Amino acid sequence: MKVNGKSMRTIWLSDDGWSVEIIDQTIFPFCFETVRLQTMEDCARAISDMLVRGAPLIGATAAYGLALAMRKNDTDAALVDASETLHATRPTAINLKWALDRMRAVLAPLPSISRAKTAYAEAARLCDQDVAVNSAIGDHGLALIKAIAKTKAIGEPVNILTHCNAGWLATVDWGTATAPIYKAHDLGLNVHVWVDETRPRNQGNSLTAWELGQHGVPHHVIVDNAGGHLMQHGLVDMVLTGTDRTTANGDVCNKIGTYLKALAARDNDIPFFVALPSSTIDFTLLDGLRQIPIEERDGKEVSHVLGRAEDGSVRTVQLTPDDSPLANPAFDVTPARLVTGLITERGIAKADKQALAALFPERAVQAV
Amino acid sequence: MKVNGKSMRTIWLSDDGWSVEIIDQTIFPFCFETVRLQTMEDCARAISDMLVRGAPLIGATAAYGLALAMRKNDTDAALVDASETLHATRPTAINLKWALDRMRAVLAPLPSISRAKTAYAEAARLCDQDVAVNSAIGDHGLALIKAIAKTKAIGEPVNILTHCNAGWLATVDWGTATAPIYKAHDLGLNVHVWVDETRPRNQGNSLTAWELGQHGVPHHVIVDNAGGHLMQHGLVDMVLTGTDRTTANGDVCNKIGTYLKALAARDNDIPFFVALPSSTIDFTLLDGLRQIPIEERDGKEVSHVLGRAEDGSVRTVQLTPDDSPLANPAFDVTPARLVTGLITERGIAKADKQALAALFPERAVQAV
Repeated sequence: MKVNGKSMRTIWLSDDGWSVEIIDQTIFPFCFETVRLQTMEDCARAISDMLVRGAPLIGATAAYGLALAMRKNDTDAALVDASETLHATRPTAINLKWALDRMRAVLAPLPSISRAKTAYAEAARLCDQDVAVNSAIGDHGLALIKAIAKTKAIGEPVNILTHCNAGWLATVDWGTATAPIYKAHDLGLNVHVWVDETRPRNQGNSLTAWELGQHGVPHHVIVDNAGGHLMQHGLVDMVLTGTDRTTANGDVCNKIGTYLKALAARDNDIPFFVALPSSTIDFTLLDGLRQIPIEERDGKEVSHVLGRAEDGSVRTVQLTPDDSPLANPAFDVTPARLVTGLITERGIAKADKQALAALFPERAVQAV
Repeated sequence: MKVNGKSMRTIWLSDDGWSVEIIDQTIFPFCFETVRLQTMEDCARAISDMLVRGAPLIGATAAYGLALAMRKNDTDAALVDASETLHATRPTAINLKWALDRMRAVLAPLPSISRAKTAYAEAARLCDQDVAVNSAIGDHGLALIKAIAKTKAIGEPVNILTHCNAGWLATVDWGTATAPIYKAHDLGLNVHVWVDETRPRNQGNSLTAWELGQHGVPHHVIVDNAGGHLMQHGLVDMVLTGTDRTTANGDVCNKIGTYLKALAARDNDIPFFVALPSSTIDFTLLDGLRQIPIEERDGKEVSHVLGRAEDGSVRTVQLTPDDSPLANPAFDVTPARLVTGLITERGIAKADKQALAALFPERAVQAV
């Protein structure tokens, strides 16, 4: 999407044809800087230090990490070493392992001499496929926005509330929940986004608001507490979020607080949609509340916050009393009964087992 | 309640018998300082600069302001002047006007010479009455906590979730929503409080967590997003909040985000109670959502936050991109249908017109 008026992706091959460039996402929303990765180790550091984040972008960075490794040393041993080093950066990231496995499956059988070239081609393909998946999600979601726009008086925007960052910064381009929004905006539809700040890590105001602002999409940042009130007063037409993991029956695990917005949407008869690449559906799970373990993260994320002081320095400040204990569950599960629909790259499915299995029969069968 | 192990109120007469002391609430939770008010003007500044906040405490401070004014000059003109000065500090605070009207009604008919002494006595009475009202709320709410405690296994706490600060710092003592909690804790019941941080102004972590910590009540600070998840997992036994204004039919206007917690409580079959002095019931209103205007406050409350930096300085930092628009509705309305009961100084009423009128017949009749 656009940054300073120029279209870009989150990861791309440099003009030199071999090094890789990314956006440093650790310094948002106050600075915008790109970083050039010249070695596999640079890629590993970019992942572990969270210069890149978001499952698809982590996978893409790892894929290019293998390409850089093969360029330097294309032996079997180097391929194994590089894969292991990259995997160790964030061992729980499923997409990271998936990308590395895919690259190794392609590269391992090849003669050494052709590995580097093929690795670059495969990494580029992986990126293009991510863009295509998100673009397809965008097209399906766009139809929903168009339908709402038709019910609006002239000049009245379609108001979409989103939580956390399921934006292009987490993917190679488009994002998931943001893809329909960008498509609608680019078509000239009047869309306006309510951006939940998304405590405790504030991905809403540091990432989503930045993205939307750069691309020119009208929006307002709100505290997470405000969405229910806006819905009560007819100021939200649709809730649209991403998800980290969806069960076979349509339960949605996403950033903490998503469930509260789904409840408010239901109470006010507002559609609640979740956008996702089908790769994040876990067809082996049937009860998100019981089966998905929720990560309890460091309480310091609650007690401390990063921001820019008046002198321009970026600082961490403490919000809570010194001795107050903290709890910090990072995700929650929105039961399928509260989800109006799941927007996937193949189309929109009802959040239930039959509908998901009908859209992805090969996956559902495999999981049985 | 207790601070550093010592019982105190939020406002008290100094040992000198004429000046008044308060706690400076602008510097919480990082410093605890008391301030001595020696003139009516000191009281006015304490209110306008928000050293004191919360309707009952503002009223009490204004009452003592009139006493200090009468001590210096007990003429009719001085009484009018002082009332007007104090009222101008926060003209929209209903409780401020109520306290000043009450004081003037008592003082105006008196001979000048007896006004100062009577003013001190009346201010003290006003404070004691606030304490008595909150203590009664505490007793009624305590019965609810006791009933839950009986259902618990040994060692298992009664988990109460609260939003914003309806604590003793907003009143003269006890608080409203906190009164039952302090009573239960003082009785030796095992209570534990989930403290919503309460964005954007963070009254939960800067005031409620501080209060509870000082008094020794077990608690955890959580982000506002977390409550629904905790309820889904059986970790909340009761939601207990305060309110700024309640309608004759039991709709509750309270700090933004309260409605989302009420929805989650209902979805998980958890009782949602609201504690309030009956003075905050508006018997002329019958539809909170349509009739209560919601204040839209400065977006800077959303974009900026106050905290303590690593060097110990208290600083404001910016969280949002420079050019992102902000929206900041300060309150929301929880419809009566989501409220299990209203805990008042006369007892617990169902959140409906008949029940409230039965408990406060003289108020309900007057409003017709």
